[in-house]
Amino acid sequence: ASNKSLLMLPGDGIGPEVCQEVRKVLDWMDKRRAVSFDVKEGLVGGAAYDAHKTAITDETMQDAMDADAVLFGAVGGPQYDNLGWDVRPEAGLLRLRKEMDLFANLRPAVTFDALLDASTLKQEVIQGLDIMIIRELTAGVYFGEPRGMQTLPDGTERCIDTQSYTKAEIERVTEVAFDLARKRGSKVHSVEKANVMKTGVFWRQTVSELHKSGKYDDIELHHMYADNCGMQLVRNPKQFDVIVTDNLFGDMLSDVAAMLTGSLGMLPSASLGAVDEFGRRKALYEPVHGSAPDIAGQGMANPLAMLLSFAMTLRYSFDLQEDADLLEQAAQAVLSRGIRTGDIMAAGAEKVSTAQMGDAVCEEL
Amino acid sequence: ASNKSLLMLPGDGIGPEVCQEVRKVLDWMDKRRAVSFDVKEGLVGGAAYDAHKTAITDETMQDAMDADAVLFGAVGGPQYDNLGWDVRPEAGLLRLRKEMDLFANLRPAVTFDALLDASTLKQEVIQGLDIMIIRELTAGVYFGEPRGMQTLPDGTERCIDTQSYTKAEIERVTEVAFDLARKRGSKVHSVEKANVMKTGVFWRQTVSELHKSGKYDDIELHHMYADNCGMQLVRNPKQFDVIVTDNLFGDMLSDVAAMLTGSLGMLPSASLGAVDEFGRRKALYEPVHGSAPDIAGQGMANPLAMLLSFAMTLRYSFDLQEDADLLEQAAQAVLSRGIRTGDIMAAGAEKVSTAQMGDAVCEEL
Ligand SMILES: CC(C)[C@H](C(=O)O)[C@@H](O)C(=O)O
Ligand SMILES: CC(C)[C@H](C(=O)O)[C@@H](O)C(=O)O
Repeated sequence: ASNKSLLMLPGDGIGPEVCQEVRKVLDWMDKRRAVSFDVKEGLVGGAAYDAHKTAITDETMQDAMDADAVLFGAVGGPQYDNLGWDVRPEAGLLRLRKEMDLFANLRPAVTFDALLDASTLKQEVIQGLDIMIIRELTAGVYFGEPRGMQTLPDGTERCIDTQSYTKAEIERVTEVAFDLARKRGSKVHSVEKANVMKTGVFWRQTVSELHKSGKYDDIELHHMYADNCGMQLVRNPKQFDVIVTDNLFGDMLSDVAAMLTGSLGMLPSASLGAVDEFGRRKALYEPVHGSAPDIAGQGMANPLAMLLSFAMTLRYSFDLQEDADLLEQAAQAVLSRGIRTGDIMAAGAEKVSTAQMGDAVCEEL
Repeated sequence: ASNKSLLMLPGDGIGPEVCQEVRKVLDWMDKRRAVSFDVKEGLVGGAAYDAHKTAITDETMQDAMDADAVLFGAVGGPQYDNLGWDVRPEAGLLRLRKEMDLFANLRPAVTFDALLDASTLKQEVIQGLDIMIIRELTAGVYFGEPRGMQTLPDGTERCIDTQSYTKAEIERVTEVAFDLARKRGSKVHSVEKANVMKTGVFWRQTVSELHKSGKYDDIELHHMYADNCGMQLVRNPKQFDVIVTDNLFGDMLSDVAAMLTGSLGMLPSASLGAVDEFGRRKALYEPVHGSAPDIAGQGMANPLAMLLSFAMTLRYSFDLQEDADLLEQAAQAVLSRGIRTGDIMAAGAEKVSTAQMGDAVCEEL
């Protein structure tokens, strides 16, 4: 047995297909790099609902807590659209994030030279783009209580959600952003709506204080309103290095940033917890794309976002920087050779299936 | 005296300069179209703070309530960045929206053929773009209570905002969207985060029920998550006709949509209240761009967004469709003649000042 444990949660739609391709890389790691993993698999989302009437069972949840890293495919599909709130597919993902305390969601928005044409933006605006969005993932309006229908003293019936942040919740995600920025361009944009929201004022103040603590003098800090950030991402995305923002703004802004690259099927993400006393941090890796039920089961899905999520796993959970580099380079090389799945197909390229794309990456390796 | 009353609130930064150009159009209306307005002027934002230590006085607020329409320039500037919450420039605008009950914010995102090059998006993606975003403007997280710092029973200190919607608040803005869609492409996208937020579930359900009431069978209704909407705006904006969404999502999505056009200095907006028993509705018109303190007072600002906001005033508050058309056509014609302010300058065009741009529009008229 290996001392490296992985839990695979393929989920729904194209999740299982793209996870399957990770297995090929695991084989290569085992044979060629003498690194082996203990791999468990579990159900999440609609798949878990079909089997157990819940979006994730307590046993699977425990497996996730015990694993060194979780590889998550995608959840959701039209057949699950009318399930109750507590058992909807998203509930599985949200429970994983909350119970594993994965507060820092790293969402790179990077362009691939071979795929620039696929973007709706002009080439000069996005060539060489390399933004890292750090989204707070365990607080904010996603989890704040109270929520739901309420009757006010005057009889008014209303529905509410609560956007909520403590100082500690803002500080820890900002530290991740500052630390990561230091390894990159040392520039951080902190994004909120301090002109309208009290949590925005609190966010801005907390980030400013941390920045002034003396530990981050080398970091250039900017504050920006979320609406303006959305605009600036479209106007001139290369002005950004690292963006740190709350759960809801991060959800939207990271998706806008991802779409700028024109390569949604290429983008990985990492969700990290705190480093514990043994130097270990819980982590979950997932592609930015969704479950794409319309093309599921047809071998058409692009497995590269999932494979690059596995590269992030190697980098952030196992400190296997060289293996991560090799995997990322292999993905680049395959693209340069003109090998494409349908979503990133271009004139003159060779159209391949999900499995063929996985094979091509392994050949490169 | 005329029976048409206008309140002008130029505000800060470039607000006064661009409002000034509206006066020229008012002259033309008076002389050539025999339509005259009673115009009052007032202070708002930092300008009001400088004079009265408040973002808007009760007297000015009353003038706004009494006017047939309010023309609003812009508010804010670096010298006001550290003012207290209650007197910050934005508080003036938010008070106007709330007390005038301007629940429906109409934000067109339209491209101008003469300005397509200014967009960061490829021409084919945005040519002919014509989206109308209807943003709910008097509820949601902008106004929900409670908000601010709280100590929970267990001693946790946190900061909160409350996202809040009643059924009536959702219905009335949706009705505006459905009615407007009927005069356009009859397609509405309702946007929320029903997969995460209880207010999102409530929003979706309320919009669906209204759609099924029998009054809107001719409207094609789609539901979309806000993060996906951000993506889709970048991927393929022409799929949209009318978008209806809440206050916060509307703030971000309308800014992203505006930036797609590459012509932020061109985009007007209207904020409308309910129709009262006399068939009159309170209304405020403002350009989408901000106060741009960096170029204020230099005659560099583009007055077209403000002039087009006045065209919306003619259209929605005074039912002067023909005058509105003439004004919009004049703006188009000036652009086609290659006359540009600095923000939309292109090679070979003639660069003009704020006042010259206003004059050029009046000449066309
Ligand atoms: C599936 C959904 C709950 C999720 C979110 O809103 O966080 C997704 O959009 C994401 O960004 O990971
Ligand atoms: C100035 C600010 C309060 C305002 C808002 O957030 O609504 C602005 O961004 C807008 O969109 O009109």
